[in-house]
Amino acid sequence: MQATIITIGDEILIGQIVDTNSAWMASELNKIGVNVYEIISISDDREHILSAFAKAKQESDIVLVTGGLGPTKDDITKKTICEFFDDQLVLDQEVLDHVIMLFEKFVKAPMVDMNKDQALVPSKAQVISNQYGTAPGLWIESEGTIFVSMPGVPFEMKALMSDGVIPKILNIGELPFIHHRTILTAGQGESTIATRLEQWENDLPSHIKLAYLPSLGTVRLRLSSRGKDKDLILETVDDQVQKLYGIIEDVIVGESNDESIVHAVVQLLKENNKTVATAESCTGGKIASLITEIPGASKVFMGSTVTYATQSKVDMLGVDPAIIEKYSVVSEQVAHEMAYKARLKFKSDYAVATTGNAGPTQGDSDAPVGTVFIGISTPEKTYALQFMMGNHRDRVVQKTINKSLELLQKELIAQ
Amino acid sequence: MQATIITIGDEILIGQIVDTNSAWMASELNKIGVNVYEIISISDDREHILSAFAKAKQESDIVLVTGGLGPTKDDITKKTICEFFDDQLVLDQEVLDHVIMLFEKFVKAPMVDMNKDQALVPSKAQVISNQYGTAPGLWIESEGTIFVSMPGVPFEMKALMSDGVIPKILNIGELPFIHHRTILTAGQGESTIATRLEQWENDLPSHIKLAYLPSLGTVRLRLSSRGKDKDLILETVDDQVQKLYGIIEDVIVGESNDESIVHAVVQLLKENNKTVATAESCTGGKIASLITEIPGASKVFMGSTVTYATQSKVDMLGVDPAIIEKYSVVSEQVAHEMAYKARLKFKSDYAVATTGNAGPTQGDSDAPVGTVFIGISTPEKTYALQFMMGNHRDRVVQKTINKSLELLQKELIAQ
Repeated sequence: MQATIITIGDEILIGQIVDTNSAWMASELNKIGVNVYEIISISDDREHILSAFAKAKQESDIVLVTGGLGPTKDDITKKTICEFFDDQLVLDQEVLDHVIMLFEKFVKAPMVDMNKDQALVPSKAQVISNQYGTAPGLWIESEGTIFVSMPGVPFEMKALMSDGVIPKILNIGELPFIHHRTILTAGQGESTIATRLEQWENDLPSHIKLAYLPSLGTVRLRLSSRGKDKDLILETVDDQVQKLYGIIEDVIVGESNDESIVHAVVQLLKENNKTVATAESCTGGKIASLITEIPGASKVFMGSTVTYATQSKVDMLGVDPAIIEKYSVVSEQVAHEMAYKARLKFKSDYAVATTGNAGPTQGDSDAPVGTVFIGISTPEKTYALQFMMGNHRDRVVQKTINKSLELLQKELIAQ
Repeated sequence: MQATIITIGDEILIGQIVDTNSAWMASELNKIGVNVYEIISISDDREHILSAFAKAKQESDIVLVTGGLGPTKDDITKKTICEFFDDQLVLDQEVLDHVIMLFEKFVKAPMVDMNKDQALVPSKAQVISNQYGTAPGLWIESEGTIFVSMPGVPFEMKALMSDGVIPKILNIGELPFIHHRTILTAGQGESTIATRLEQWENDLPSHIKLAYLPSLGTVRLRLSSRGKDKDLILETVDDQVQKLYGIIEDVIVGESNDESIVHAVVQLLKENNKTVATAESCTGGKIASLITEIPGASKVFMGSTVTYATQSKVDMLGVDPAIIEKYSVVSEQVAHEMAYKARLKFKSDYAVATTGNAGPTQGDSDAPVGTVFIGISTPEKTYALQFMMGNHRDRVVQKTINKSLELLQKELIAQ
């Protein structure tokens, strides 16, 4: 089964917002065996919507559409759906009751006519109730293609998908099994690894697709396969992964179904019933932010402090000002102190600290742009290492995040 | 001039990564007067790439393509470009020298043949040098349409766009002026505002397009116009904004060219030479993270502490444990203490604190899900307010972030 995702709204095309909905929807579809053929963002324009619908209808079995369902004039998705399916809007009493309830309970402002219009739906559509908002989901089948229209507000869309759309798709019939397995490597570049894997890659069964996903300092290898025989797919992919370990075991640092090192770190902490805290300077809280985005992170994450200003390293963490004075704020000694003091302050089992000069200018220290120190504190020891992370600010920050998580992961595996 | 943005790579279609490149490119094009017609994500598949190229060639003057330029076998963009333009790959000595230099300076590993292949470029393409990576930008003109191919690594793409692609587009000829003006409102819903603005909206000149951008607790009104006469556009949009202020002045909280309240807050802090710190519990560091993403924020941001665990509010901020004991961790008194102590600890002029129960379960306090207290501390006073933010975790967190920034902004305006 094949899907197209269409997002409607000028705010994406003028770059005002990043479309995070599509990746989430694609991931959910993928999990249940639906292959996403194309993701497309178009404007709130009648003709453009109609032509995108016509193309998607040709190419896909399922078309997920988000956006353009608000009550105001610039939102034209619903009436364009009617035009495309040669349909008309009718009042849905259940939706109206729900809109009235939402207004009484949450909005506490008088309803206006355009709020009532939220209860108008195409007569050919099945309504999927939106518990969090006034615009319902709409499910329309036409000549073998299913169109689903949902609001673009992320948490409304996610609830509609999880509670309504995904179960309905699963009901349609047998979907193939889609399997991805991702091996994390560190220490060698994409091309070096690919050269080492040349023979293995050539010998891969045709139903297994290999992708190299390089990120800063790491390369992820994703093996993907799909088909009806779940056991066979799991077995053949597993065989190939075993062979892979035999060839490049020296650079493999782990494996993750969730595809990222931060998931692996949170998982290791949970398994071992350990906690972590972070003290971040050049990474600005981004390590903590990544950790707290993982469901259940609150069990293993004690907290974080972002000490942007030099003085706050003293005030918040209790780093000895004499050490900063003697070695400078970007130094092995300060990273060491930050990690150690963060572990004590937050009463965590592990702590990670970063201090560095990410550029573009030199800042509070004499260290050249790209110089970063990462401190690690464990129940047994504390240490700090120096890295040169290159000359581009984003790259320095991202590489520091990856390297910090990698060091933490190594400690968790070694314990 | 009209553009299509094409991103190539299965990782987007299986939902493994969010496509942030397209929004950035769209925003840059928009600034120079290029209208983005469509953004499309497709797989690393020869036929799909060819059909997307053919469609884009019909619809747009400029086609920006990212992804699929790595050295490994799954990257097929370059050879598909050759097929589409009936061209062949030739060695570019300058690119080869650059790749050799990058390897010697940064990779410190022996080059392999596939690295050298990065220097093969379509003979019809102009090469745009990629200072941060091995895959060059490619600029190919064919029958009135310009195709630009760039690597998908964000900072490489951004450097290529800023230093190479945008200047070359500006060279082509006269581009129209595109103007957006965004008014921030808070306190009334989209439909209520739209009803109040109905007459004004009907009377808007046809070249001005209005969009309602509701977010949690705020609605942004975006007026957009484009044309050759810059002065006329600025003047007519300004006239309409003046009228708008006359109708809904009570709900307007500000205006931002950068379209977000966090930009407005950082700007106000800079203008007044003031600093801020945050102490975050239920928002998990996301307010700090938003602030530090604004260029120049380091001048106004002292730091942040994320006190996820109850005990860390005591250990990191010095909140009196007796207060937590007496009033519970989600209380007006604790939010008040957190804000006050954060301001003292970080030696900032202002501080914002959040504590609440975002759900889905009740956590460390008895407060019902959705209960949030926001504390604000200024040089003159400290206070905390209670809010009910609804019953969905994402909504609670996002509303708390927005409300915190709104309260801070009000204090900065009032000072």
